[in-house]
Amino acid sequence: MVVGLGTGSTAYFAVERLGEKLKSGELKDIIAIPTSERTREQAESLGIPLCTLNEKSVLDVAIDGADEVDPDLALVKGGGGALLREKMVEVMAKKFVVIVDESKLCKGLGPGFPLPVEITPFCHMHTLRTIAALPSVAGCEAVLRMGSSSTNKPDGDNIAVTDNGNYIVDLHFKEPIKDVNKAAEELKNTVGVVDHGLFVGMSYQVIVAGKDGIKVAGTDGEPAWW
Amino acid sequence: MVVGLGTGSTAYFAVERLGEKLKSGELKDIIAIPTSERTREQAESLGIPLCTLNEKSVLDVAIDGADEVDPDLALVKGGGGALLREKMVEVMAKKFVVIVDESKLCKGLGPGFPLPVEITPFCHMHTLRTIAALPSVAGCEAVLRMGSSSTNKPDGDNIAVTDNGNYIVDLHFKEPIKDVNKAAEELKNTVGVVDHGLFVGMSYQVIVAGKDGIKVAGTDGEPAWW
Repeated sequence: MVVGLGTGSTAYFAVERLGEKLKSGELKDIIAIPTSERTREQAESLGIPLCTLNEKSVLDVAIDGADEVDPDLALVKGGGGALLREKMVEVMAKKFVVIVDESKLCKGLGPGFPLPVEITPFCHMHTLRTIAALPSVAGCEAVLRMGSSSTNKPDGDNIAVTDNGNYIVDLHFKEPIKDVNKAAEELKNTVGVVDHGLFVGMSYQVIVAGKDGIKVAGTDGEPAWW
Repeated sequence: MVVGLGTGSTAYFAVERLGEKLKSGELKDIIAIPTSERTREQAESLGIPLCTLNEKSVLDVAIDGADEVDPDLALVKGGGGALLREKMVEVMAKKFVVIVDESKLCKGLGPGFPLPVEITPFCHMHTLRTIAALPSVAGCEAVLRMGSSSTNKPDGDNIAVTDNGNYIVDLHFKEPIKDVNKAAEELKNTVGVVDHGLFVGMSYQVIVAGKDGIKVAGTDGEPAWW
């Protein structure tokens, strides 16, 4: 079984648990594809057999966290700065399973978490202005990410650089994005944009940890209840 | 006047002529935006005042060559490996003027010149396979560019790297691309693709040098005659 391993504070625990289950023999014949250098290092330290998309282009399942989830199971991801590699891996998964706590659930994407857009460094301020002027994200404030590429460490005078050598523009919204599909399309179609943190039509199911236990939304579970 | 300066063997002469006309005083108040490091160096050596898209996001005119031109004035560009920066600059020009010799004219894009696609280095062989499987480019042969990022110097055992630190996949076609708009859309929408060498709906006019002199196709000139 080929398993995609996400990046970030939630995915960290999933990777750790996978390592334990392989070590105990509860799981066997697993080969994993990490979505970042950080996750690769973690998985290696746990002895999880690894490969890349170059060797295996189809994954049975991918597991990752998200920064925001709407009732259509569309996601905002990329707070950790790994959105491109995450999307490359997770779009190839037969089943993309999202794990979040209930604080990530929202009625509409945007206000709860900045939407990251990965752009090429060349003339990045021009690309930032071009993005901010797109009709589908009208009213957002576009901010170049500084410091570490992870929003967990936003301090620093240097521009944050992703694993791919690109920059990130974070779009801050006061109102929910009206048409998530349109925003995804306009962002990706912008010259200078490599990819963005809207993951639309990709989630197979979303597993939500809340005060009252675990709930599941998606194909094999309940519809979104929030 | 803000002028975009293209890259490649044809644009080279346009840049040289611009430098001459500025030096002689025939042209004044020009500031230029180069589309590659090579063009920046050439323009600097000629004393042409330069800026970047970061300072000026709107250009009055951009001038560049092309590798192929079809009767709708859609282009294949990127033999020189500068397609992303060229597209970033030229898409912002009020008038994008293309200069070619008549050998670049074709009935349909594809067979005359490989179509370059700029991709992120991460898992590039996976992205190459994904591109080759897109319906709109069915039947093409996808080849990772080696050596220099310019097809003028294709030799070498190393993968060619663009000014932006990315790789290039050249798509070789035996038959013309059936739907150029669809191909442009599918390529740009692929995760891992940064941009591609199809320049569709961008040309203002195409100036063609032939055995019988200069001919012009486009808005202010004749329609395409080939």
